[in-house]
Amino acid sequence: MDFSPSARAAELTAAVREFIAAEIEPVERRLRRPAGAPVEWRVPDEVRELQRRARERGLWNLFEELSNVDYAPIAEATGWSFLAPYVFNCNAPDTGNMEVLARYGTPAQQEQWLTPLRDGVIRSGFAMTEPGVASSDATNMQLTAVLDGDGVVLDGRKWWTTGVGHPDCRVLIVMGLTDPEAHRHARHSMVLVPIDTPGVTVERMLDTMGFLDEPFGHGEVSFTGVRVPAANIIAGPGQAFAIAQGRLGPGRVHHAMRMIGLAERALHLACERGLARTAFGKPVMNLGGNRERVADARIAINSTRLLIQHAAWKLDTGGPLAALSEVSQIKVAAPNVAQQVIDFAMQIHGGAGLSSDFPLAAAWTAARAVRIADGPDEVHRGLIARIELAEHGAAR
Amino acid sequence: MDFSPSARAAELTAAVREFIAAEIEPVERRLRRPAGAPVEWRVPDEVRELQRRARERGLWNLFEELSNVDYAPIAEATGWSFLAPYVFNCNAPDTGNMEVLARYGTPAQQEQWLTPLRDGVIRSGFAMTEPGVASSDATNMQLTAVLDGDGVVLDGRKWWTTGVGHPDCRVLIVMGLTDPEAHRHARHSMVLVPIDTPGVTVERMLDTMGFLDEPFGHGEVSFTGVRVPAANIIAGPGQAFAIAQGRLGPGRVHHAMRMIGLAERALHLACERGLARTAFGKPVMNLGGNRERVADARIAINSTRLLIQHAAWKLDTGGPLAALSEVSQIKVAAPNVAQQVIDFAMQIHGGAGLSSDFPLAAAWTAARAVRIADGPDEVHRGLIARIELAEHGAAR
Amino acid sequence: MDFSPSARAAELTAAVREFIAAEIEPVERRLRRPAGAPVEWRVPDEVRELQRRARERGLWNLFEELSNVDYAPIAEATGWSFLAPYVFNCNAPDTGNMEVLARYGTPAQQEQWLTPLRDGVIRSGFAMTEPGVASSDATNMQLTAVLDGDGVVLDGRKWWTTGVGHPDCRVLIVMGLTDPEAHRHARHSMVLVPIDTPGVTVERMLDTMGFLDEPFGHGEVSFTGVRVPAANIIAGPGQAFAIAQGRLGPGRVHHAMRMIGLAERALHLACERGLARTAFGKPVMNLGGNRERVADARIAINSTRLLIQHAAWKLDTGGPLAALSEVSQIKVAAPNVAQQVIDFAMQIHGGAGLSSDFPLAAAWTAARAVRIADGPDEVHRGLIARIELAEHGAAR
Amino acid sequence: MDFSPSARAAELTAAVREFIAAEIEPVERRLRRPAGAPVEWRVPDEVRELQRRARERGLWNLFEELSNVDYAPIAEATGWSFLAPYVFNCNAPDTGNMEVLARYGTPAQQEQWLTPLRDGVIRSGFAMTEPGVASSDATNMQLTAVLDGDGVVLDGRKWWTTGVGHPDCRVLIVMGLTDPEAHRHARHSMVLVPIDTPGVTVERMLDTMGFLDEPFGHGEVSFTGVRVPAANIIAGPGQAFAIAQGRLGPGRVHHAMRMIGLAERALHLACERGLARTAFGKPVMNLGGNRERVADARIAINSTRLLIQHAAWKLDTGGPLAALSEVSQIKVAAPNVAQQVIDFAMQIHGGAGLSSDFPLAAAWTAARAVRIADGPDEVHRGLIARIELAEHGAAR
Repeated sequence: MDFSPSARAAELTAAVREFIAAEIEPVERRLRRPAGAPVEWRVPDEVRELQRRARERGLWNLFEELSNVDYAPIAEATGWSFLAPYVFNCNAPDTGNMEVLARYGTPAQQEQWLTPLRDGVIRSGFAMTEPGVASSDATNMQLTAVLDGDGVVLDGRKWWTTGVGHPDCRVLIVMGLTDPEAHRHARHSMVLVPIDTPGVTVERMLDTMGFLDEPFGHGEVSFTGVRVPAANIIAGPGQAFAIAQGRLGPGRVHHAMRMIGLAERALHLACERGLARTAFGKPVMNLGGNRERVADARIAINSTRLLIQHAAWKLDTGGPLAALSEVSQIKVAAPNVAQQVIDFAMQIHGGAGLSSDFPLAAAWTAARAVRIADGPDEVHRGLIARIELAEHGAAR
Repeated sequence: MDFSPSARAAELTAAVREFIAAEIEPVERRLRRPAGAPVEWRVPDEVRELQRRARERGLWNLFEELSNVDYAPIAEATGWSFLAPYVFNCNAPDTGNMEVLARYGTPAQQEQWLTPLRDGVIRSGFAMTEPGVASSDATNMQLTAVLDGDGVVLDGRKWWTTGVGHPDCRVLIVMGLTDPEAHRHARHSMVLVPIDTPGVTVERMLDTMGFLDEPFGHGEVSFTGVRVPAANIIAGPGQAFAIAQGRLGPGRVHHAMRMIGLAERALHLACERGLARTAFGKPVMNLGGNRERVADARIAINSTRLLIQHAAWKLDTGGPLAALSEVSQIKVAAPNVAQQVIDFAMQIHGGAGLSSDFPLAAAWTAARAVRIADGPDEVHRGLIARIELAEHGAAR
Repeated sequence: MDFSPSARAAELTAAVREFIAAEIEPVERRLRRPAGAPVEWRVPDEVRELQRRARERGLWNLFEELSNVDYAPIAEATGWSFLAPYVFNCNAPDTGNMEVLARYGTPAQQEQWLTPLRDGVIRSGFAMTEPGVASSDATNMQLTAVLDGDGVVLDGRKWWTTGVGHPDCRVLIVMGLTDPEAHRHARHSMVLVPIDTPGVTVERMLDTMGFLDEPFGHGEVSFTGVRVPAANIIAGPGQAFAIAQGRLGPGRVHHAMRMIGLAERALHLACERGLARTAFGKPVMNLGGNRERVADARIAINSTRLLIQHAAWKLDTGGPLAALSEVSQIKVAAPNVAQQVIDFAMQIHGGAGLSSDFPLAAAWTAARAVRIADGPDEVHRGLIARIELAEHGAAR
Repeated sequence: MDFSPSARAAELTAAVREFIAAEIEPVERRLRRPAGAPVEWRVPDEVRELQRRARERGLWNLFEELSNVDYAPIAEATGWSFLAPYVFNCNAPDTGNMEVLARYGTPAQQEQWLTPLRDGVIRSGFAMTEPGVASSDATNMQLTAVLDGDGVVLDGRKWWTTGVGHPDCRVLIVMGLTDPEAHRHARHSMVLVPIDTPGVTVERMLDTMGFLDEPFGHGEVSFTGVRVPAANIIAGPGQAFAIAQGRLGPGRVHHAMRMIGLAERALHLACERGLARTAFGKPVMNLGGNRERVADARIAINSTRLLIQHAAWKLDTGGPLAALSEVSQIKVAAPNVAQQVIDFAMQIHGGAGLSSDFPLAAAWTAARAVRIADGPDEVHRGLIARIELAEHGAAR
């Protein structure tokens, strides 16, 4: 066993950290939208400039170039900033979509969509969740993707389609029901749908507890007689589940490590504030159980980081099927730990912790949302238990 | 011991519940601001009409007319709706301000401010928390309220001044430092400051995790050489702590019972949704530990409601000093229970629970904020412990 | 609503508290068995003397004489001492058995068993749980109680038959399967079985995490062709479930309030020790989050006590069927709260908290065991949820 | 990063697991003392035979031969059995005492004590905690160890002196106060005291929640004018703290990994029982939140095991001072995780979980005790926080 990072991971992580501190954070502070100010669905020039500089320095598409274990600390570093993943072209859902295209796409699909995504020239969305059904069970999806001659026709409604508000968003990967008679894991297809296809309508942008997450956003999108070539089906009809399973492992490692980054930042802010402010004659940090909460945060962060790194290593060495339980474990653990630590940091900050003056309120909302996004905690707990019990002879 | 409500409380509670369901909820649904829409700092005519109707039916200022025990179930009922407390003229911070004026105000102060507040003609704000110091320790407050001839001059800065965004807001109760040399509980004064006094500037409106809580809002307010008559000091200089102690008991009962109402509504929504939606071949409610969470919610709600009712009874029978620990206990327990139950309801709702389509996201934020407003959990835990340990001989 | 105790309850509670402090506690300290000393299944003379004195003072069978609400604070008081319930003739399982006989027994059954139980002359056991099946589902019970002419014949095995080790134990109430074809709630009967009936064998005494709870104890008992008159069936064949439901309500109030008493004692000890001992230059109580734990204990104890008192009031005013959920709520809440508070007290005591020098170790084990006895937490949570969801239209 | 075990660790772990399953567990089952049976302070011949066989197979003193990282999985494996650590000569407190002697002992001390300890011919005790003071603050220790000519004289009282009940126990390492005027970390000495030295009296054996942990046990030991040569002071007078710091790191890794082993065993038993028993028409495992608890157990065990392995790696690569926080983190995390998982397993087992028929009750008590032994959770949390906050400029 060796817990040292590789030389390359260490070097890139340091570079990313430095770039965030020196370049991104000042821009992020400047761009913070005051509460109540109008929402703008555009990318400021300064951010595009940051992307150019990041690419110049080789801090671009690192999620693709590195193993999961080597990328993990970089994902953590980008979790300190809401802007950083985009600046490094490592933001969801584009990362997952790029992985799908790289792994399952035809050369034509890759040329049309993967190349401009890698270049950061376009953005993409991922349309899976539906408003009308319990979407934590993906077999529930009811939007139809029916083969019709050389085309596939989509009808239905999606929501929480992340990325659809971005001005550069050009394509959606849409999960639709193709063959209701097939085995429950072979009924659905993933279809590439250019966003300007007739019949695609972004009905509204959804907020997450008051945050619109512009310029990416989460849209409710209707599909009415949307026809695209059958060649737009990724990996062929009925492959949606196989793709989803392959798609989600690395993305969950990224998400989980970003949560660790968020938690570290919250703990850092809590320590700073708790030592700087005084109440009842003592630093706030020395009141009540605050110091114990620092310790509990440290334990939770460290053990969860190791859990994620281990899952990343399992993905790297055994592939997604070998790491199913591990990936679900981090999907549950990471946002809960982040939420716990952010909660503590907010209490230490008092009213300031509720306002937009500090990143804590947005972090709190982000962590809370991740407990639902990509499958609620409960679904992942169910999967972990199923795998565990199968080792004791239970039907899987 | 008798746990039955009085006849009058039972009757009024039923009337309030019916009024909310029949009259307020439809308006509330209609008025919901879509995410990203511009924030309006005004009171819609429909809401003013609701106020008229509530007053007609005798559902007006009930917090003043009833004992704490009798008002408690009404406060719970109003917790089901964000609009209801205002419709019944029972909203914070006006309730607390009215109580201060009723108890400590001179006849002149009462005529000028209490009467129109009771009539719902004006609104008021309460300015205590400051951005520059740990305000959980009220002796930290640094805004000065210096006596100068027949006047008092205020200089400093407050934030989280709730109510200051309301178009009818006419007066603030401001806590300021009058005599830094006095005993730490006799240094500060409460001053009535008309909002149009020269030198009062609302610098900005603060958001609570993305919510501005219009039309009341929470303002950051600067006071620069603000001069008002010394007669505007409530109960005389140095009385701020005595007033605050008397002011907060009933208000905390209201807040806590509203949290119970919020929790009941969340549990209701969770049960409805959990039984109506299906995943993995079962109602969502029957998956994983969901039913246990229903049970835990029921236990937590019931026991916390009883804790609050008991605290209300102690306030009624023994007064605020006899109920200090009890009031702090409910201040800690109620929002934590609400947050726990709402968290569960959100998980059951999946993505819908994050959006503004359901009241859960706003409820979640409200409960989270109450854990800080009026003193963070930790400060109240400290007070409860101090009282407990004093019974074992520790210095109080 | 009125939270004051009745005059009689207040007076008797004070008398019980005083008797425990003045009379029982010194004896209890004297009788404490040193670790590793031989276990004795006898009642010391001093304890029989305490019983005589308690009876003289009218502190005898109070669970029968008072309403549940009035008895509740007395049960709490007896929770401070492991010996007290027996001294006052208010100990499980005899209380529940007396209630069954009083409510469902024939005059002959009452004369034979109830009268000497009330006089404390004999003791009894309750034999329900079986080693071979999941006994949390009472319909699983497999010991047969077959009607045969004018007799009933019992065959099978029970364990956790509490009270069977007591030298005065003369009779068991045994739950057996009479008619496997009947509705699942009408299959079982409760049978009075004198302990000296041929075929009854106490196979061994079970320990609860190392404690044998002598002189009562918990036995594993085999029944081999045990024949008693059919007149020994309580309330007729197939009535076991109806009896159990009526039997358990008050008993659970007693148990729960004793848990509150245990928790109060633990909190008391924690405060005393935490203020008396010094580490790192401060009273232990002022280290880390200890004071917050005092506050959390106070909140948990107070709210749970109210929950129990309310359940007692519901039992008194509406009967056991109206209070089903409430009784299960306290069955879950009380031992968990006790365990939490005792855990804290043990930590404050360090090594002393693990030893038999303080009552904490035994209290810890007792609270832990109560989470399983009489149905594990999970079963009661299931029942609470079923009742809650039935109000939302779910099948009950 | 590489999470694979070394070839040697993998091979030895497999051998240890097999030896435990094939050789130790049958003996352990046979030797289980029935509840209430007399306690015997002797080592059965079968156990001595197991030791001989383990040594033959090279499974002896592995804690000394391997790095901490390599020994960690072996410690976990021994956690499945209460007997195993002794069989492999890897039990506390002898391991810690051997490490002290190996690292700080003179050749003479090593020859006299270390060699026979390594051979398993004698056993030893460690006497630090005192009944009269809060021993979590080691500077509180009041037993005196006064230099007097060529001797050192000990006076005072210790308790929780583990190992002192063993028939082979020959020597104690006693921590005593030598120079009250020195710096608080230089006042105490560690002294080797043969147990038959005049003035040493084992006053009684203490139980841990009813368990005496024979044949090792925990004694209360008085020292009255106990004189030993000054050469028995380890590493010289005043070095007790330096020694303790070096002594505890590896021992805490062992303890923590054994807790993981215990937790795994409990989870294993829970899965087996939960699938085998039926209630309310389903396997018990499928009731309520049981499957979620399996998932939470898996997450907690895996992340905590990684935390311990990482701490072991830090000890190996950076030494005890570099790993201070990490060692305290595992000291907090491991027994709490074990307790949580065992608690679940007990609930699944119902009454059986409370009895001595399963190892759960003893495991529960062991995990609970470890939260106090070697410093209560709270002291370690304090240390972790101090290190964390020092990085933010707080005084260390």
